[in-house]
This record gives sequence, C-alpha cells and structure tokens, in this order.
Amino acid sequence: MITLASDFGTPYPAAMKGAILSRCEARLVDIGHEFPRQDVRAAAFWLRKVLPEFPPAVHLVVVDPGVGTDRAALVVRAGDHVLVGPDNGVLLPPARALADAGDDHHADIEDHADIDVYELDVGDPRSSTFHGRDVFAPGAAVVHEAGIDRLPELDGISPAGDAVDLGIPEPERTDDGVVGDVLVVDGFGNVITNVPGTVLGNRSVVRVDGEPTPVVRSYAHAEGDEGIVTVGSHGNVELAVNRGRGDDAFGLDVGDDVRIGFS
Amino acid sequence: MITLASDFGTPYPAAMKGAILSRCEARLVDIGHEFPRQDVRAAAFWLRKVLPEFPPAVHLVVVDPGVGTDRAALVVRAGDHVLVGPDNGVLLPPARALADAGDDHHADIEDHADIDVYELDVGDPRSSTFHGRDVFAPGAAVVHEAGIDRLPELDGISPAGDAVDLGIPEPERTDDGVVGDVLVVDGFGNVITNVPGTVLGNRSVVRVDGEPTPVVRSYAHAEGDEGIVTVGSHGNVELAVNRGRGDDAFGLDVGDDVRIGFS
Amino acid sequence: MITLASDFGTPYPAAMKGAILSRCEARLVDIGHEFPRQDVRAAAFWLRKVLPEFPPAVHLVVVDPGVGTDRAALVVRAGDHVLVGPDNGVLLPPARALADAGDDHHADIEDHADIDVYELDVGDPRSSTFHGRDVFAPGAAVVHEAGIDRLPELDGISPAGDAVDLGIPEPERTDDGVVGDVLVVDGFGNVITNVPGTVLGNRSVVRVDGEPTPVVRSYAHAEGDEGIVTVGSHGNVELAVNRGRGDDAFGLDVGDDVRIGFS
Repeated sequence: MITLASDFGTPYPAAMKGAILSRCEARLVDIGHEFPRQDVRAAAFWLRKVLPEFPPAVHLVVVDPGVGTDRAALVVRAGDHVLVGPDNGVLLPPARALADAGDDHHADIEDHADIDVYELDVGDPRSSTFHGRDVFAPGAAVVHEAGIDRLPELDGISPAGDAVDLGIPEPERTDDGVVGDVLVVDGFGNVITNVPGTVLGNRSVVRVDGEPTPVVRSYAHAEGDEGIVTVGSHGNVELAVNRGRGDDAFGLDVGDDVRIGFS
Repeated sequence: MITLASDFGTPYPAAMKGAILSRCEARLVDIGHEFPRQDVRAAAFWLRKVLPEFPPAVHLVVVDPGVGTDRAALVVRAGDHVLVGPDNGVLLPPARALADAGDDHHADIEDHADIDVYELDVGDPRSSTFHGRDVFAPGAAVVHEAGIDRLPELDGISPAGDAVDLGIPEPERTDDGVVGDVLVVDGFGNVITNVPGTVLGNRSVVRVDGEPTPVVRSYAHAEGDEGIVTVGSHGNVELAVNRGRGDDAFGLDVGDDVRIGFS
Repeated sequence: MITLASDFGTPYPAAMKGAILSRCEARLVDIGHEFPRQDVRAAAFWLRKVLPEFPPAVHLVVVDPGVGTDRAALVVRAGDHVLVGPDNGVLLPPARALADAGDDHHADIEDHADIDVYELDVGDPRSSTFHGRDVFAPGAAVVHEAGIDRLPELDGISPAGDAVDLGIPEPERTDDGVVGDVLVVDGFGNVITNVPGTVLGNRSVVRVDGEPTPVVRSYAHAEGDEGIVTVGSHGNVELAVNRGRGDDAFGLDVGDDVRIGFS
C-alpha cells in the first residue's frame, strides 16, 4: 500500500499516481491533496495524527516549497512504515508518531531506536519543479517493491547524516494556565492549538485570552453560537463555534499565541 | 466494497480509511468528502441519487453535526446494501432508494419490507468529536467482514426501536402549477428543487416565481445567459444558466420556496 | 485500469464510479474532478501532460459543456491507451501525447498512424444532462471489459468521420522574442503559457510584457516576492511568485497574450 499526501489540488497528484502505477501495482490510498499550500508545519501536524491509523504502508508526502533547491530527498523508516518526501521537516513528526504508535513527544530523532533516516539519490530529474512526480513517486515505488527489510541495501539510498527536524512548538506553563500556539485552522474554522487536552482537567470554564469560555465535550454541546473550548479528535485543545467558525469568533489564525487561563 | 461519504474535506477522511484498512482489506470508493458542511438534508438528497448506481456495498456516511451527543449510531440494511452512520436522518432516504431501486417516495420506513434498522453499540470511543474514525469506520469494517446475511447475529448490533426519518419536503399543487423547495445548490450553481421533472410535461415555457422561463432539454440549449428550466440527472426540476450560475440569476438559495406556474 | 477526469466536484463523479463498478471490476484511479468548470482547453492541456505518466489504461474524460446537444460521443485509441468522452476537442491533445509518448506537436490527427477515432452510439440515455453517468461511464466499462484489441468489432462503436480537434495555440516568433498565450492558471496562481521552455536558452533575465524578470530554476530560487520566469513540470514557460500568486503579480489571466522579450 502507498498513501499519497500533498498540497497539489488538481491534477498534479494524478501524475504521481501514474508515475507509481507505471512502476508497480501497489494499492494507492489518498490521504488528501488539499493540505494548506506550502505549509510544512500544518502537514506535519495532520500526518502525525492520521498516518498512525494505517496498517504498515509506504507514505508519499509532498509538501515541498523548496523544490528545485538542493534540499535532500528522504526515505524514513518508522516502525513498520516508510515515509518518502523532501527533507524540510514534514516527515519526522509523523515518523515519530508511527514509530511510537501515537506518543510523538520529546524523543530526539537521533535517539530514536525505531527510526532510520536515509537519503534518496535525486539523480538528474526530468524537471526541477515537480519532484513529486520525478523523484518521490518513483522512490516510493522502488521502496514498495523492495519491501521495508531491504531498505538498507537498496541502490540510490544511503544513510542520511542529519535531517531537518521541524519544531512543533510546546506550550508554556504560566502562573494560572498555559500559553499555546495556533497550529492549524481546519476547514470548519476550528482553531487547533498545541495545548494537550489533558491540561483542561474537569474544568467547565476556562479563560481564552481573558474571556470566560465554556469547556464542552463536543461542538453540539455548545449553546447557540457561543465560542467553546473542546478537545479535538487529535487530543489537543480546540476553539470552536457550533455550526460556525471558531477562527472568526476568537479572532485567531495560524501562528497566533493563545492564553488559556484557569483562574 | 466500502464507499465513503462525508463533509470532512482534507484530511479527516483519510483517518477513516486508515481505520478501515487496519481492520480489513475492503475495496474503498470515495463518494465525496465535500458535501455541504453539516447539511444532513443535502447529503441525504445526493446519496439517494448516487448510491443506487453502485453494486451491493457497505456505505459509510458521516455528516454528523451531533457528534458527541447521545444520538445513536445506525446500521441500516437496504436490499443488498448496508449503510452505516449517525441517527440524524441522513441514512433513510438513500436506504429507501437502495431498497426500491430508485422509487423512494412515500413508503413509511416501518412498513418497508426490505429495510432493517439496527443500532450500533458506540461503546467508549477514543474521542467525542470524531465518531467517523472511532465508531462508524470500525463498524463498517466489521459489517463488511461479516457480510450482510450475518448482520442480525453480530455482536454490538441490535434492532433499533426507531430512527430519525428526515422529511424531504414534497411540493404542493396550486391552481396553476406547484410550489416547491430548493433542496440543494450544486457546485455549478444549479438550483435543484424537490419538484419532479414529470410535472413539466411537454411545456416549452413555465413561470418561475412569475417570470416566463424557457424549458430546455439541457444547459447547452439555453440561448446566451438567460435563466432556464431543465430536468437534472436526478429527475427533478433544476433552474440553471448555461455557463453561469442559476442561484445568482434566480436569486434562490437552499430552503427557499419556488413557484412553478403553468399559465 | 480506468482513470476518471471531470469538472464535476462532489458528488457527480461517484455516480460514474457506481455506473462502472456495477458493470465491471476495473481498478479506478481519479485523475481529478476539480478541473476548471467547462473549460475544455484547460482540461486538454493538463491531460496531455498527466495521462502519459500512466501505464496502458482506459481514460474517462468528462468536461462536457455541450451535454444534451447532438455532439457525438467518442472512443479514441491512442497507442496502448483508450480515451472515452465527448467530441468537443478535449480528447485529441491527450491522445496525441499518449500515442507519441509526449511529442504532441504538429501531427494532424488524420495523418496519425497510431490513433483511431470511433463514435460511440449514444442510444437513448436515461438523462440529457448527465452523459458522464449514462453514456461515457458505461462506454468505458464496455471498452475495458472487451480490451483494446477488440475495439473495431464492438457493438455500438463505429469509425468516426471526423472529430473536433482543439487548437492549442502556438506562440509566435517576434523580432526580439515570442508572443504566447496564457493557457492555464493553476491552483497556486502560476501562469502557464504555451511557450516551450527551450526558447529561454540559458538566459538569466527576460522581459515579460516589457518588464525585466529573472529566469530561475524553480520557485524557491526567487528572491522575496518578486515575479519570476521558470519552466514548469509540463515543459512550458511559467510566470510565478514564490509563495505568492503569479496571476496577481503579472496581471495575467487565461487567454491573455504575453510577450517574452530577449533584448
């Protein structure tokens, strides 16, 4: 099985599918191709949540604002899974999640027993603007056909010296709560933070940037169109409006600080 | 075969795919994940038109504004098909269409010989915000693996007392025509009503909210950018503009009344 | 293998998938369903770039603004591939690319040894607005089941007298460069022209509509938010802004002339 994730929209992902299927008969599963454009951090966030749902697979990940520069191409073994994509930080957060079955916090990549990072020889690709088709998709097909156990001996793959490790920021404790970051705003307008849901405890109200805001079990528990705090399916604190947009209601966007207060 | 329909966009559907594929090897077919957000009625309308095209399958349907409340989870057998999703009305209109091969009008669900409605034991799901991944996808995998004939004896499934049955409104006859409802505006801006196309007879002009409007066989038969009346692929009256947007031209949106006059 | 391309969005493509899968068990691969609405030329441009990546397949292509008129339905054999879709010009540019493995310039279709054009008997379809479901998808299933070698003898297929051949315009040489056309603006805002990238030679600066503009190897080689000229993955000259929209920066849209000057 090869999964495909990108920020390409229509029709570039199909060129990657063709490049794979002309080389092997792998089952293909789309993760999605509407990831926020050129937003490496958002893709890393989502993929570390979504990919661990899958059985062992090769995951082709192409969110690649640096295409055509000399950034390396990586093949990363993580547990029984393999990731293929650019060396810009998008691969390591999901790699940790795949290796740890969800516990992706705090392990340095070099200390991680169950992750191996290889560099994929880019060679002389057909284009300098579409390595998804010309480098990563063919690489994923080769890895799929060889199988994960033969990775170390594959032609064109060599151990990587180091790899870009994207810092997903950690929230900071304060006297009366935490200050977190907005990591992602999803398509519903839900504001997803880096604050783990466990910090909420059993509270029924917290302050969001000073404003008392109810904590509810899910969107539909909100009353009317008030802003609410909940714990999303990803386990993090989310700010939302039932049948409305949380980003508008709270005035928050990706990268903003958000202060969650308990007193 | 398991089909997937939702209003999730990117990347939540992939988590459902992973949850299925880690449990079984079913063929997966996307119905679409861009259904109008949290619009149960629009999804029910489309699915009763689209799902009957398929051979026998398990259909996973997750348009679920009530996620995390105590609304039940359903498994519905309809002819040779099975639907899995929330008990909010989205399942029964397509269930009737699947059982009747297209004649989905007027049969009360409790009188329907070829539909069985079961409740799926939700248990204690991992999240209260993403039952698509945590309840419905695993349920669909279980049903797929067991097969439709073993539904009555499956663990975690029991006959449902009743189920939310979404009223898709019927048009009303008037002295000189019908008054219908706008059910859906599709991505082209075509205004899809609940008025069956058969009421148009062989007329070449009708009044739409008073305005004389030509009835044409298809969009391309319109002259210039005039508004036209046609019968859509779903069999209902549609208001459209060739290479333009019918919703703008007619000033109509979902839920509006529309009066079709014959004199 | 059957690939599917359309401008349908959600959920019409699923009806085509159902219509195919109720007739055969072909592997299905989505090329994309978000092609620019009713833009036959844009679809032809993309498909001649994307489809040659695939192994031999049946390609179902439905961008069909003339649905319900008497435009013919075509089955086109191109090398080891078959295309099925409307006779509006969308099929022949990708057919040439499939037959020629990428060299799709200048061959008249009637002179082409490796392309056969057939007309598909439309019969009396269920609808006059959705031939994708009622004509082309069933046609693709029949062709897939029969196999490419039996095309000439299939019921309901006969040699076509002629076929609409879409002119993708060629750029014109001028005293100091070329005048091209904007063929497509992609989802990133990149402006894709009909000018082959080879005309740039090794130049590091050209004039775009008079303005000196750097030529770079890929988007990431741009400095800041300046407009740049590059060669896209399709081999043509593209006008872009790194992490921004080229169409806004250059003030260009589909169909506009663009003058590339070398002095």
